[in-house]
Amino acid sequence: MQQERLEKQFAFALEIDKEKRIGRQTYCTDGDTLENDAEHAWHAALMAILFSEYANEPVDVLKVVKMLLIHDIVEIDAGDTYAYDEAGLSTQAEREMKAAERIYHILPADQAQELMALWQEFEALETPEAKYAKAMDNLQPAMLNAATNGRAWKEHEVKLSKILKRNQTTAEGAGVLWQYGLERFVKPHVELGNIQDDVSIEN
Amino acid sequence: MQQERLEKQFAFALEIDKEKRIGRQTYCTDGDTLENDAEHAWHAALMAILFSEYANEPVDVLKVVKMLLIHDIVEIDAGDTYAYDEAGLSTQAEREMKAAERIYHILPADQAQELMALWQEFEALETPEAKYAKAMDNLQPAMLNAATNGRAWKEHEVKLSKILKRNQTTAEGAGVLWQYGLERFVKPHVELGNIQDDVSIEN
Repeated sequence: MQQERLEKQFAFALEIDKEKRIGRQTYCTDGDTLENDAEHAWHAALMAILFSEYANEPVDVLKVVKMLLIHDIVEIDAGDTYAYDEAGLSTQAEREMKAAERIYHILPADQAQELMALWQEFEALETPEAKYAKAMDNLQPAMLNAATNGRAWKEHEVKLSKILKRNQTTAEGAGVLWQYGLERFVKPHVELGNIQDDVSIEN
Repeated sequence: MQQERLEKQFAFALEIDKEKRIGRQTYCTDGDTLENDAEHAWHAALMAILFSEYANEPVDVLKVVKMLLIHDIVEIDAGDTYAYDEAGLSTQAEREMKAAERIYHILPADQAQELMALWQEFEALETPEAKYAKAMDNLQPAMLNAATNGRAWKEHEVKLSKILKRNQTTAEGAGVLWQYGLERFVKPHVELGNIQDDVSIEN
């Protein structure tokens, strides 16, 4: 029994290695290398630990970290859907659910169920942990985009309205951090013209 | 006050991005791409969550995960020292302490102290959490080396005696997992000649 359990657990541990080859649209601080999903998950999870004092509601930090470490595993099959790609976004949920069914079920049933539930909780954005985790998932690329002269924003011709809409979830998870991000990451790049200024910022 | 604290925390969050450019000597499952430190930390931390039932002693999983997420940050300044590089190993401790002093002190004092203490606890290998974290740090590359036809072991002409010595810490952290790793990762590659057979395996 234990041997079979171990086989499944190691098969999953090996399968998720593929996440290191799933590219994202965010440049790393060298200004030239696009980040991959595994690097992003590591960075966001570590930021969740560092910034937990700013969560809008008290959070179970281990649960948040688990969510962030696994949140992009589905992209091994479903690919990365860029946050501002409307066409991709319309089929994303279905593609990702199919991926989750395959990949998490490599694990023993109890762990498959636990990780599926965690991933679905993250996606639903209803609990304090999911909201705070999503805030990290949003802030991490915004920080990197700002630090790399807004290159990714420029290349994708990203509009301010889209950034503000997406980051409603950041504000819901960690309002203090969103205010910081708005002032330090977003506004300067609107000024510089790296983010397309199509709407006024309320606050 | 809060603004200054946030500046320091985000400065650290940005600084550690460099860990994504620190290369390791382990091939990913595509067989061709060398892993970097951020990817390794993500993979090992996730494995620590998956395999926590096999820790030799009960562990605080969040503490283990924190250790693994930060354990290679010092390599931003000190570089990756290959596990079987004797010359590099002799100066490793000094180089890494200097790096830790610089990098962790980008953070506010309380967090700098907390992460330094965690990193030092990991390095000392005395607590259940440090031993279990080290087991993951060892098992993750062994799993990948085995899955990539022993390429990294062959290229570095790694001897079985060195693997057994290094993995005493794996056995101390998670004996069940080391037995699995010995049978499934190490022994087959000794048979294949990918690991140099310079000593007999006791058990």
